[in-house]
Amino acid sequence: MSTLRQDPLTGRWVIMAASRGDRPNEFRLMQRDPDPGTHCPFCPGHESSTTPEILAIGRSSDAPANGTDWRMRVVPNRYPALRPGNESSSDAPESELPPEFFPSRSGVGSHEVIIYTPDHAAGLASLGESGLLELLKVLRDRSEVLSRRPGHKYISPFCNHGPEAGATLAHPHMQIIGTPELPSYVVDKAVRFADYRARTGGCLLCDLVAAEEKAGDRVICSNDRWTSLAPWASRFPWEMLLVPSGHRAYLTEADDDDLASLCEVLSFSLRGLASIHGDPSLNLVIHSAPLIPTNGEVFGDKRLDDLAYSPNKDFHWHLEIMPRLSRQAGFEVGTGFTINSVIPEEAARRLREEGS
Amino acid sequence: MSTLRQDPLTGRWVIMAASRGDRPNEFRLMQRDPDPGTHCPFCPGHESSTTPEILAIGRSSDAPANGTDWRMRVVPNRYPALRPGNESSSDAPESELPPEFFPSRSGVGSHEVIIYTPDHAAGLASLGESGLLELLKVLRDRSEVLSRRPGHKYISPFCNHGPEAGATLAHPHMQIIGTPELPSYVVDKAVRFADYRARTGGCLLCDLVAAEEKAGDRVICSNDRWTSLAPWASRFPWEMLLVPSGHRAYLTEADDDDLASLCEVLSFSLRGLASIHGDPSLNLVIHSAPLIPTNGEVFGDKRLDDLAYSPNKDFHWHLEIMPRLSRQAGFEVGTGFTINSVIPEEAARRLREEGS
Repeated sequence: MSTLRQDPLTGRWVIMAASRGDRPNEFRLMQRDPDPGTHCPFCPGHESSTTPEILAIGRSSDAPANGTDWRMRVVPNRYPALRPGNESSSDAPESELPPEFFPSRSGVGSHEVIIYTPDHAAGLASLGESGLLELLKVLRDRSEVLSRRPGHKYISPFCNHGPEAGATLAHPHMQIIGTPELPSYVVDKAVRFADYRARTGGCLLCDLVAAEEKAGDRVICSNDRWTSLAPWASRFPWEMLLVPSGHRAYLTEADDDDLASLCEVLSFSLRGLASIHGDPSLNLVIHSAPLIPTNGEVFGDKRLDDLAYSPNKDFHWHLEIMPRLSRQAGFEVGTGFTINSVIPEEAARRLREEGS
Repeated sequence: MSTLRQDPLTGRWVIMAASRGDRPNEFRLMQRDPDPGTHCPFCPGHESSTTPEILAIGRSSDAPANGTDWRMRVVPNRYPALRPGNESSSDAPESELPPEFFPSRSGVGSHEVIIYTPDHAAGLASLGESGLLELLKVLRDRSEVLSRRPGHKYISPFCNHGPEAGATLAHPHMQIIGTPELPSYVVDKAVRFADYRARTGGCLLCDLVAAEEKAGDRVICSNDRWTSLAPWASRFPWEMLLVPSGHRAYLTEADDDDLASLCEVLSFSLRGLASIHGDPSLNLVIHSAPLIPTNGEVFGDKRLDDLAYSPNKDFHWHLEIMPRLSRQAGFEVGTGFTINSVIPEEAARRLREEGS
């Protein structure tokens, strides 16, 4: 017997059908090859294969840029989805078409790559708490820089690890994209945060975590600043949601102690997943509020502009980890409805056992 | 240089970045094996591997059910996401939890499989117009049956073809799922149809197709009843949108002539794709309106119930074809924002040339 669950943060419905996990699958999942071969552009010695670095960590201060001696490098994406620029000087070429049917705008934004370890075979799970902390600080600080650029409405740090997660290079890396429009899932969440506050006066995610701590069976681990959960309506098997107990809207508001506490629960959660599944393809996405419009502008999204939406009150930043151990099929990509064959309570129980 | 485009039907933003298509990819796409081997449960002779058939086409009328002599079989999914049943007798087991944070309901619904050809190596593109017509009539007629079942709010016919499209079996098949809640993308569209009608008095998709016919460069093919387009804000490279010129809300309202005309543009579009890409993994999804609530009930979705939404006025049924030639990464699954490296005008031009 299956049940339907709705994600309180997005409104999306998920079918929980454990018996679907028993069905035969003629197609195996693709794995990441831990052997770098000779051509990996992100391995040490191949620094000239990337665009010149924005910053590097671990190199002695008198060493030249783009040399081999580093623990982490940040570079502009060589094939950027969006580029920094002047909005007004690069209007969309399609502006002569009726905007009712053909809305468009120029691709102003940012796209950076964080090569967070020289070790080709590593990953977030093997980085350890000190490596994770160094990475999270860089993500926070680069997000801060990007959020001050003109025309940026949203900053999205994310990790594509392994082929099933949409990575095109095997070497461990993260990315940050800054967009000039708001992603629809972020607006979905912001609207639900605002609606909840209008009805109750509280924060949806603060209250949800309190309810989860009380229920207990979806909690993977927690400390005094963070809780890691298998979310109620997980779209992906073994999905995880990491929430700070302090109510803040942005990653950029986290202090070093917040990030150190995050590393503790993040490391525990990822070690649990690795213990069960080895080196699975996964996405990690950090979700903050839409950036506060400057110069009295509006958000530019009708759903938010019609609300009395306040980023600092109506968003609570969080991390989402989506292991890619099944593939999104037509029902999922066509309708937004999802089928999940791993019950979150069972995932949390296993992750609690294995993560220690 | 990239541009951003917004899908007028859903509000989702897509980054069009042709230069991203040049980036190296260490991970090849998985292919479907056209050799059935000995174990395919959907091949003739293995009828006992499926659940007993609901109907078969092509078998002589005096032959027993579940024999080998068929052109098409419809069977209940052996591993169903949802099952028909009595809503009130199977309340969700989680009902003691606060519904604000843990909304749920029982998994009442339908899940059928249409094995649309005995030929393991075939696919929609090789079926020909007569085979496609037979399939579409079965999808329409089964949708009609499912839409009358109690508790069903939405009927979703879809195809998962090939491993990258989430298929778990290689043998060609389609599925129909009937759900007791509305998919979020369907609600997104219905709200935008209703908003457009409130502002203009017209149908968003009727008027969009007229604007596309006028612009011309995204049209793949058309006849007097159907238009096949590369949609303005395609999320997937080589995506296609097929729209009937008659304003109707449901697949179940299509007559045989409508379906025969659809087969003409569908076959042309799929042959074009096959000519360029061989046998790519793809999803096909048929989108109709939410079912009209019976007994004076409401839709059960706040966004629709707050509107003066009318299914027959505020939806226009259509087909979506999503080739899976790139993988959805963290940015896509986490934010709903998409990056597409194949410009729709270029896709339409190639498909026009190759489809004939």
